[in-house]
Amino acid sequence: MTLNELVHAVGGRVITDPDDVRDFCHDEHSYVKPGRPCAVVIAESAADVQAAVRWAAEHRVPLIPRGGGTGIVGGTATTDGCLVVSLARMTAIKELSPQDELAVVEPGVINADLDRAARAHGLMYAPDPSSYETCTIGGNLATNAGGLRCVKYGVTRDSVLGLEAVLADGSLIRTGRRTVKGVTGYDLTGLLVGSEGTLGIITSATLRLRPAPKHPPVTVAAEFSSLVDAAEAVWAIVRASVGPSLLELMDRATLEALDDWRHIGLDAKTSAMLLCQADGPDAAAAAQVMAECCTVNRAAVVAVSDDEAEAAQLLDVRRMAFTAIERMGACLIEDVCVPRSKLPEMFAAVERIAAAYDLAVPTVAHAGDGNLHPVFVFDRGLPEIPRAVWDAAEEVFRVALDLGGTLTGEHGVGTLKRHWLGAELGDATMAAQLAIKNALDPLGIMNPGKAI
Amino acid sequence: MTLNELVHAVGGRVITDPDDVRDFCHDEHSYVKPGRPCAVVIAESAADVQAAVRWAAEHRVPLIPRGGGTGIVGGTATTDGCLVVSLARMTAIKELSPQDELAVVEPGVINADLDRAARAHGLMYAPDPSSYETCTIGGNLATNAGGLRCVKYGVTRDSVLGLEAVLADGSLIRTGRRTVKGVTGYDLTGLLVGSEGTLGIITSATLRLRPAPKHPPVTVAAEFSSLVDAAEAVWAIVRASVGPSLLELMDRATLEALDDWRHIGLDAKTSAMLLCQADGPDAAAAAQVMAECCTVNRAAVVAVSDDEAEAAQLLDVRRMAFTAIERMGACLIEDVCVPRSKLPEMFAAVERIAAAYDLAVPTVAHAGDGNLHPVFVFDRGLPEIPRAVWDAAEEVFRVALDLGGTLTGEHGVGTLKRHWLGAELGDATMAAQLAIKNALDPLGIMNPGKAI
Repeated sequence: MTLNELVHAVGGRVITDPDDVRDFCHDEHSYVKPGRPCAVVIAESAADVQAAVRWAAEHRVPLIPRGGGTGIVGGTATTDGCLVVSLARMTAIKELSPQDELAVVEPGVINADLDRAARAHGLMYAPDPSSYETCTIGGNLATNAGGLRCVKYGVTRDSVLGLEAVLADGSLIRTGRRTVKGVTGYDLTGLLVGSEGTLGIITSATLRLRPAPKHPPVTVAAEFSSLVDAAEAVWAIVRASVGPSLLELMDRATLEALDDWRHIGLDAKTSAMLLCQADGPDAAAAAQVMAECCTVNRAAVVAVSDDEAEAAQLLDVRRMAFTAIERMGACLIEDVCVPRSKLPEMFAAVERIAAAYDLAVPTVAHAGDGNLHPVFVFDRGLPEIPRAVWDAAEEVFRVALDLGGTLTGEHGVGTLKRHWLGAELGDATMAAQLAIKNALDPLGIMNPGKAI
Repeated sequence: MTLNELVHAVGGRVITDPDDVRDFCHDEHSYVKPGRPCAVVIAESAADVQAAVRWAAEHRVPLIPRGGGTGIVGGTATTDGCLVVSLARMTAIKELSPQDELAVVEPGVINADLDRAARAHGLMYAPDPSSYETCTIGGNLATNAGGLRCVKYGVTRDSVLGLEAVLADGSLIRTGRRTVKGVTGYDLTGLLVGSEGTLGIITSATLRLRPAPKHPPVTVAAEFSSLVDAAEAVWAIVRASVGPSLLELMDRATLEALDDWRHIGLDAKTSAMLLCQADGPDAAAAAQVMAECCTVNRAAVVAVSDDEAEAAQLLDVRRMAFTAIERMGACLIEDVCVPRSKLPEMFAAVERIAAAYDLAVPTVAHAGDGNLHPVFVFDRGLPEIPRAVWDAAEEVFRVALDLGGTLTGEHGVGTLKRHWLGAELGDATMAAQLAIKNALDPLGIMNPGKAI
């Protein structure tokens, strides 16, 4: 198949102009230098994706799938001569079944759009990355994305019943099912979710919806003069087993960045803020327990509210944290996750490492999951990430692994974290991963150089 | 390595006497004719399993892993000359961490033993197959077992954080993690769970524990004069989104078998019984809603109780259902699962097919999951399952697939259901499954002839 034949096969929706192609070359992490693709296919169907894969296989060209471009680990970074397949225009919600509490969607659907469609039926789509207004379901699936609500409702994998995907040989497979249970065959659904486009390109997903909470959530906002105290409060809340629907922590540097931008009225003595929510029928009682956990752990201010507008405002502040931090300079956003009992130790280590390297490392955490996002801030305009930033990040990884943690809780490995992968997985597990990769993609054309 | 060397390597724990070997040849499904193994290794460590795998690989001998032997689809059935590896003596709970709500266990731990150990810390191990007093965690993992509680707490996969497993080349891999989230590398944990010993032998599992419910459950027991009415009530309960922790249905034939054995005082007009439970802080309100769903759907008797002893008694009756049915004759226990909105249609189809083939097909269902166990009863002592039983079972499968369902919700494929697999998965998906199998087990020694 020539490129002209590919153009014909996908209805002409191929971009080759170098200026236009540039928009499809990088994600939100600007420190992976993109190569120049030979072309971008704007897919509108599984058949388009199949045509692109077959062309790439015939010409041994790397294939880079792309959704909303909101990733931050270089998972969609291009290489010279690659073929980009954009799924962003496959935005159909093909089915929304209130009776079976599921939706069948194309990969380009924006996360928040699906949630809104579900809410119209008293349901919700639970996984909610901070970027939920711009990220796509396809990207969420590729990275097994988390979010704020996943402390109660699980990560993306927990909301996927089945998939349709194009494999490296151009075949279209269907995995999983429409039922809530089922054990026929190997779990290819789980294998594809989080595989960052290296095993196949997802063209449709059958997603589980859940009943939306019936009552307004009750929110607890607590301020601490010590970050480690706040982390201790998180662990106390986890041990109390009251099922928080949200449990987010922001440190002083993050709060300063927000105050600088949005004037949130930050107290000089506040070193950390904890946001907790409960949304069940016993939300008020659960909130009371969470508030007590904060008080016991020396919180200076503890406010409990069932005012929905106030809660929405607090959550908006939290969701703006990365944007606020990015105003400070260039950023390397990290994503370690540790057993929740190790949260105080992990926070203490980040503070220590930031001081040792004299770096600003504002840290936001999905604390209820043990998932920290230390953001290493450095001067804008440098040609690459400074050595000291990498060294400090590596120290953070080492501590996380030593505490029984992982180097990425929800963002993925992409290109940025590949050289640390072996340290977490070990040789035998790496070999098994590569055997699967080679079995499903013997030519190595599917998003090469990413994830594993 | 000679067999003698293997015997030495595993500390002498190898059984070769034909009479003694026979105990390790079949599961609870007696209609798969077992072959005669060359030996049985009684493993006590991962190193023992590695030695057995290496010996089997060297001699190209099929390797059959075995736990409690409670399977019912021939998943552990032996072939002539195979090597059986029994994991039943690896019964250590190596760690139970209340703070991180997890346990690290060997595969031979009995399901209910782990649950009891967790309860001592206010936690529970949620997955509870009916055989929970005799089945092992290893077998639960191999089949991704369900149970009564999984309508609320999920199937086995949902309680697995990580695994240690021996692959076909004798290597020991570690998958997953101790954290509640993490996306490093492909999801080998999910791939191994439910793979029925065809990809590797699990030697350790890191399992998620959950807070045990704090209040006694509230139970609803309802009797219906129509099976389809009971199924309609189930669907009404599902739509009411009150989060039942148990939702089980038994038909007339099942109740008769129980009455015949245990004299449960069955009313002549009762065609079906529904058991519902709620265990959350709003259990009483949830039970009231479930009771109303039963009344609206023409239940003859509806009883609501928060008496724990009464609830335990009702559940014991439900858990004895298979044993009661087995008193009627030889059994083929099926396991179809359909979208929950299709439950009334599926029950109606089973009734119709049973009548058309003039067969007794008592049916028990994890109704809240859409998971039915129609049990095809036939004369004892026949050399094989009668043709009419297979034909009727095949009709049940066809209806389930047509309704968007699957041929096994929780029991697995084993040897019994392999010839129907292609009908559900399709050629392209089968090819992908086989590619993974061949990549991880190129010699085809791992439990050959099972699962895929």
